[in-house]
Amino acid sequence: MHVVEVNDPRDDRLADYLRLRDVNLRKSLEAEHGLFMAEGEKVIRRALRAGFLPRSLLLTERRRNALADVVASGADDVAVYIVSEDVAKLLVGFDLHRGVLAAFHRAPLPAPEDVLDAARSVVVLEDIVDHTNVGAIFRSAAGLGIDSILLAPRCADPLYRRSIKVSMGAVFTQPYSRLDDWRCGLGLLRERGFTLLALTPDADAVPLDEALADGGPGRRVALLLGSEGDGLSTRWLGQADRGVRIAMAGRDVDSLNVTAASAIACYELARGTRG
Amino acid sequence: MHVVEVNDPRDDRLADYLRLRDVNLRKSLEAEHGLFMAEGEKVIRRALRAGFLPRSLLLTERRRNALADVVASGADDVAVYIVSEDVAKLLVGFDLHRGVLAAFHRAPLPAPEDVLDAARSVVVLEDIVDHTNVGAIFRSAAGLGIDSILLAPRCADPLYRRSIKVSMGAVFTQPYSRLDDWRCGLGLLRERGFTLLALTPDADAVPLDEALADGGPGRRVALLLGSEGDGLSTRWLGQADRGVRIAMAGRDVDSLNVTAASAIACYELARGTRG
Repeated sequence: MHVVEVNDPRDDRLADYLRLRDVNLRKSLEAEHGLFMAEGEKVIRRALRAGFLPRSLLLTERRRNALADVVASGADDVAVYIVSEDVAKLLVGFDLHRGVLAAFHRAPLPAPEDVLDAARSVVVLEDIVDHTNVGAIFRSAAGLGIDSILLAPRCADPLYRRSIKVSMGAVFTQPYSRLDDWRCGLGLLRERGFTLLALTPDADAVPLDEALADGGPGRRVALLLGSEGDGLSTRWLGQADRGVRIAMAGRDVDSLNVTAASAIACYELARGTRG
Repeated sequence: MHVVEVNDPRDDRLADYLRLRDVNLRKSLEAEHGLFMAEGEKVIRRALRAGFLPRSLLLTERRRNALADVVASGADDVAVYIVSEDVAKLLVGFDLHRGVLAAFHRAPLPAPEDVLDAARSVVVLEDIVDHTNVGAIFRSAAGLGIDSILLAPRCADPLYRRSIKVSMGAVFTQPYSRLDDWRCGLGLLRERGFTLLALTPDADAVPLDEALADGGPGRRVALLLGSEGDGLSTRWLGQADRGVRIAMAGRDVDSLNVTAASAIACYELARGTRG
């Protein structure tokens, strides 16, 4: 890699790093240029280990020696921009305490069929629209050993900076794909023999652990998780084989938060489809 | 209750509501006056249902009719302050979108002995210092049916505004107490026949579900959870009967986030000590 000091936050070479908290700008900029942003040394190293190619790095003066090994061994045509704390703040829009950012090239997503091939446990996210929730679900799924994640068309981007950060880089290693058809997307799973379980707060649904205990070894299970606000659509609920719930105790608490519920769901699903 | 319109954010009667995001100010102010703050209609109603006594309400003009039933039926000496959006912002330090706040009297916490009496499942938080994490753990524990929570002396306050909000009010109904002695606090549990399980990322520890499957029905289990950064102290780890872990799958993800791990832990503990 080659090191370049830049003093002007409006310098075109820094365009990848512009206004990182401006969600609308970032969504269009990252889609158009096929890039994603990683923040902090640990997460950047995970992206590199997972095989993603860097477009450039941006380090503040105070952290100019961070990632020295990466800078030394990386491809010559990749720039490492060194900027002052002030330039960094004007550029990205906040104090860059960690002082280490990288822009990466996105890789083409595999087709849904490809991530289902060898999978026994699949989590399907209908419309999780919050990047924090998507990141948290990926971290739990990867940590607990869910084989694949499928995203509905309107689900938030796992490679958005906030998702990456919350996932601690799990989005780089967790196999996933995105359905391009919401209406009929679940057909793919059914054709491959997956049992479709729909997570719901409905007190009449079967407890998750009971539903997973039914059925022989080696079967394939897809667990459908709905959006933060409204849960699963009527359409997807209707297409599922059965509704499942996490047993609740009452006590004037009627639900778990998305991170908690998805962690328990992934934990049971990984256990229920193992070996 | 009686309604009072106030136009000056410096009015002494509004002192309970000052600078809600100033953590240091709030900690000393709330301790000194024995109060806590609840935000939003749903959470305020949960505090009232749980039997907490309001000191006052604060409504913005736009939301002056929120909680009308509470205002009509509440004790006469409780004030309902109506303020403009601008006064609210100057007073609390941010845009009060929900427009509904309440200050409540704290009730004395029960002694640790008292919340252990009938308990079979207990979660013990060593030094969880983040209010968001404390709130999330309370929500999971209450939702999943953990009998009691014990807090170490340095654990964050469940009745801090942020904890309450993240818990969705579960802190009002979940039985809990605080140990006043960190060194010997676990002795209380041992005297009462609790098995002490320490949650750890250590790959040599026993999987949580296996540890809970050992041992007969009706036994009492306390699960120890350590701080966000460093986990459990050596002292508490040493006092536990055994270390337990949540089975991880590898994939370059070595841990779950606190909310995810504690949700799974509460889920297994509630199931493992049930009926």
